[in-house]
Amino acid sequence: MTEHPDEAIAAVAERLAEAGARIDPVLEELLPRDPDDSLSEAVWYHLATGGKRIRPAFCLVTCEQLGGDPSQALYFAAAVEVLHNMLLIHDDVEDGDTIRRDQETVWVRYGVANAINVGDYMLSIASQAVLKSPVSDATKVRLARVFSESFESTCRGQAFDVNTRGSEDLTVDDYLRMVAGKTGRYLALGMVGGAIIAGCDEQVLSHIEALCESMGVAFQIRDDVIDLTVGKGRGGVTGNDIREGKASILYAHAISAADPGRRRELVRIMRKPREETSDAEVERVKALYEELGSLEFAQAEADRLVERAFETIASIPVEDKDFFRQIARYMVSRTK
Amino acid sequence: MTEHPDEAIAAVAERLAEAGARIDPVLEELLPRDPDDSLSEAVWYHLATGGKRIRPAFCLVTCEQLGGDPSQALYFAAAVEVLHNMLLIHDDVEDGDTIRRDQETVWVRYGVANAINVGDYMLSIASQAVLKSPVSDATKVRLARVFSESFESTCRGQAFDVNTRGSEDLTVDDYLRMVAGKTGRYLALGMVGGAIIAGCDEQVLSHIEALCESMGVAFQIRDDVIDLTVGKGRGGVTGNDIREGKASILYAHAISAADPGRRRELVRIMRKPREETSDAEVERVKALYEELGSLEFAQAEADRLVERAFETIASIPVEDKDFFRQIARYMVSRTK
Repeated sequence: MTEHPDEAIAAVAERLAEAGARIDPVLEELLPRDPDDSLSEAVWYHLATGGKRIRPAFCLVTCEQLGGDPSQALYFAAAVEVLHNMLLIHDDVEDGDTIRRDQETVWVRYGVANAINVGDYMLSIASQAVLKSPVSDATKVRLARVFSESFESTCRGQAFDVNTRGSEDLTVDDYLRMVAGKTGRYLALGMVGGAIIAGCDEQVLSHIEALCESMGVAFQIRDDVIDLTVGKGRGGVTGNDIREGKASILYAHAISAADPGRRRELVRIMRKPREETSDAEVERVKALYEELGSLEFAQAEADRLVERAFETIASIPVEDKDFFRQIARYMVSRTK
Repeated sequence: MTEHPDEAIAAVAERLAEAGARIDPVLEELLPRDPDDSLSEAVWYHLATGGKRIRPAFCLVTCEQLGGDPSQALYFAAAVEVLHNMLLIHDDVEDGDTIRRDQETVWVRYGVANAINVGDYMLSIASQAVLKSPVSDATKVRLARVFSESFESTCRGQAFDVNTRGSEDLTVDDYLRMVAGKTGRYLALGMVGGAIIAGCDEQVLSHIEALCESMGVAFQIRDDVIDLTVGKGRGGVTGNDIREGKASILYAHAISAADPGRRRELVRIMRKPREETSDAEVERVKALYEELGSLEFAQAEADRLVERAFETIASIPVEDKDFFRQIARYMVSRTK
C-alpha cells in the first residue's frame, strides 16, 4: 500500500458509492413513483433522503469479488436496501424519533398508521424482489431464506433494545449480542446474498457472516460515539441516545464500571422520559462516560473488532483481500 | 340437500374448525413459547385470544379437495394464520383500537414499539414457514411469491382505508375495490396456496382468487353490518366504525344516497376524532343508514356476492362442490 490511509478510504467509499448507485434504477422499477398513490409518496419521501446504499454495494462487490456476476445480484441488493429503509421507518415510530437525515420522519409527516403500513408494504416489495433474481429456483429459495432469517434476527435484536432501555444490569456482553443480532446480521445480508449468487458454499458464507458481525458491531460502536460527538443527522443534536435511554456501548460500559452512587445517577437520567431530560443531565452523563473511561473502552473495542475482521478476511477466497480490509476500515472511519 | 340450512352450516363450521386445529402444533413449533423471550410472550398473548383459524382451514380443505395432500400444506396454512395475526396487531396500532376479542390489544398491553416489532417478527417467521413446506423448490418459489403479493395487496387496501377516513366522495365501487384488496386477497391466500400445493394450474388459481374475492367482500360487508348490530368482540360496543370514521359499505352507500344536508351531517360526525364522537351521534348515523336504506343495500350486495361465488364454484374442479357452496354461505352467516 503506497496510498495514504485517508486516500485509500476515500477510494473505497467511491467504489462502494458507484456500486450502490447501480440499484437506483431497480428501486425505481420496484417502487414506481405514482402521484395518485399515497404509499409511493411516503416511500419516496423517505428514500429521497438518500443514505449511502452501503448494504447493496456490499452485495454487489462481494458477488463480483467471489467470481459471480453482480448483475444477477441487483434485485437482491435492492431488496436489502428496501428492507433497511422499512426498518428505519418502523424504528423511528418505535423510538419516537422525529428527525432522520435532517428531515421529519415518515410518521411525523404522514402519521403513525401510514408509517407502519408503508414499512409493511416496502417489506412485501422487498420479498418479491428477492424472488425476481435471475437465478435458479434452488438459489431463490436460499436467498429468500437468508433474507427472512436476517429480518427475524433484526427483530430479536430490536426487542432486546426496546425492552432494556435504562436497564441497570446491562453488560457489555449483552450489548454486543444485541448489536450483532440487530445490526450485524442484516449488514451481513447483502454480502451473504452476493456470495450465494456467486455460488459459494456454506463455509464461505459462515466466514462472511463472521466478518459482517465484526464490522457491523464496530460500525454500531462508532455510531454510539458519533451520537455523543457530532450527532446522527438529527439537526446536529448530540446525546440523543441518552435522552432515549438507549443501550449504547458507552452506557453498558459505564454502568459496569461505576460505583453504586454514580450507577444510580446514570440509571435515573437514562430512565427519564426523553422530553424531561435536560441538557445539563445529558452533559452530566457525557462527563461520567469520560471519567469512567467509556469512550476509550469503546474505541478499543472497535479496534479489536476491525482486527478480528482482518483475520476473518484472510479465510475468505476473495480476489482482492486488501479491498475488503479497506471496507472494514471504512466502516469505522465514517463520521456521519 | 336434506339437511336444514343451519345444520349444514354448523357441519361446515365443525369441519373447518377441525381442519384449522391441525395447524396448532405447527404454530407451537414456529413460535416456541419461551418465558425469557419478550417476543414470544406478546405473540402468545395475542394468539391465545383464539380466532377461528378460517384461513388455514381454507388452505387445508382446498388442497385436499383439489386432490393434494393437506399435510404438505401445513406450514403454508400456519404461515397464513401468522400473517393474519400480525396484520391484526399492526392494524390495532394503526386504528388506535384498544380491545380485540374482548382483551386489551397488544399495543395497549406491551406498548407501540413492541406491537410494531412483534408484528414484524411474526412476518419473518411466516416467511420462513412458507419455505419449510415439503415441496419442490419451484413450488416453494410460487408459494413465496403469492404470499408476498397478497401481503402487498393488503397493504395497498390498508393505505386506501387509512387515507379515506371520513371521505366525502367515497363511492361503493371504491369501497368494494378497497375490500377486495385488503380482505379478499389474503383470504384467498390460504386457498391459493392449498391449490398450488395440490398442483393446480394458473387457470384454477384465478378461479379460486375470484371465489375468494366474492367471499371476502361478502364477509367484510357482513362484518360492517355486525359492527352496527352486535359489535365486533369489543366488549359489546357497537358503532366502532362510525367512531373511527372508517369506510364501510353503509357509509359508502349512505353518502352516495344522501341529499347535501344529510351528507354534510354524516361527514361531520365521521370526521370527529373517536373520543369526541358522542353516543347520540353514533345513533344518529345509524338512523341515517336506516332511512337511506343502506342496511338493505348491504344485505343485497352480500347476497349478490354469494350468488357470484356459487357461479365461480361451478368452474373449479373440486370433488365436493356442495361443500364449497356451504363455505360461501358460512362466510356470510357468521355472527361474530
